[in-house]
Amino acid sequence: MEFTECFPVWDKLAPEHQQEILRSVSTREFKKGTVIYDGTTGCTGFIVVESGQLRGFIVSEEGREITIYRLFERDICLLSASCILNSIQFDISIETERDSRVWIIPPELFQRIMKESAPLANYVSEIMQQRLSDVMWLIEQILWKRLDKRIAAFLMEESTLEDTLKLTTTHEQIARHLGTAREVVTRMLRNFQSEGLVKVSRGSIEITDEKRLAELAED
Amino acid sequence: MEFTECFPVWDKLAPEHQQEILRSVSTREFKKGTVIYDGTTGCTGFIVVESGQLRGFIVSEEGREITIYRLFERDICLLSASCILNSIQFDISIETERDSRVWIIPPELFQRIMKESAPLANYVSEIMQQRLSDVMWLIEQILWKRLDKRIAAFLMEESTLEDTLKLTTTHEQIARHLGTAREVVTRMLRNFQSEGLVKVSRGSIEITDEKRLAELAED
Repeated sequence: MEFTECFPVWDKLAPEHQQEILRSVSTREFKKGTVIYDGTTGCTGFIVVESGQLRGFIVSEEGREITIYRLFERDICLLSASCILNSIQFDISIETERDSRVWIIPPELFQRIMKESAPLANYVSEIMQQRLSDVMWLIEQILWKRLDKRIAAFLMEESTLEDTLKLTTTHEQIARHLGTAREVVTRMLRNFQSEGLVKVSRGSIEITDEKRLAELAED
Repeated sequence: MEFTECFPVWDKLAPEHQQEILRSVSTREFKKGTVIYDGTTGCTGFIVVESGQLRGFIVSEEGREITIYRLFERDICLLSASCILNSIQFDISIETERDSRVWIIPPELFQRIMKESAPLANYVSEIMQQRLSDVMWLIEQILWKRLDKRIAAFLMEESTLEDTLKLTTTHEQIARHLGTAREVVTRMLRNFQSEGLVKVSRGSIEITDEKRLAELAED
């Protein structure tokens, strides 16, 4: 896969900007579970995912987490360059959920071209609109959707991503994705088990009634 | 107050864009409590607040609300033009909290200039970053801050905005701002009253211990 195919407004950039980007773009590989950005690591730059899976999340003062978005092949991680975005006033952390390979454009270069190029500026604005939409969806979920449905939806999503009914995710991990406490997840999974939706064992959760779990998630 | 003083990137716009905007900008007045945008009213356009106070909020299927942001003099309401922002995928509603006077730029014109002008595109991107920051703050509040502190903070904010210790806000209004139920607010205010923080009477809430209420809010 070529970088220029994955950079969405590539054809609209001025030739000199294209040249500058090609000269400075680099690739990096990260093992699964690496925190590649957390506001203390310095400015990572503008990231395009070549392969793998990343998640962006925030952390409370007490260390509780909630997943804000996930990124897959060809996705753009703009908030890893939030240091150059003047009006971002929160700390996001980004970690790899699988072994990942990414392209990185240095932050200063990206910022300069963004200032000069209307297509790139509009593209950044669109990504911000998407993130804002993601986060608004999340607010609705947190405020108005019951946790049993959120856990069911998360299990179904994981099952699709991993392409298996036997998930190796822990209760702690589910809690971190959903912004809740481990005990709450454990209690809910026991509940699911007694209804025959899943089978919980040490280190794994098996979906035993996919149809009803999906119904609960979508309901 | 002149429109050109309140439009933040005015000096960076091309003269022909300035002329086009000046020819089409209009002013409108809205009485307190008017819903000026809700996704069904058609595209309002890009709004700059000349005077008054607006709030942006979302509504659940069951009719519950939560305030996402508030706008004051000179603030920009970009989401009232969300119909021209391709990547906004949620419905926001905007209503006046006081009698308000706004400037409106027609949506099609704003969209065309945004496509051509790097300064305007970057400005839109910055507003999106601010809104994203607002909403991330809100998520942290909802997830990790106790409701008593959120209600205390809201009462303090209202007191500052209205410049009085005797608020005429209803329990229903507070619930709508904070995304919770009226009964929950009523119970908490009774709690505050028994601790001597406020005095609740029909149609008003009087702050009787400003210092301790502020401490609770900030704690």
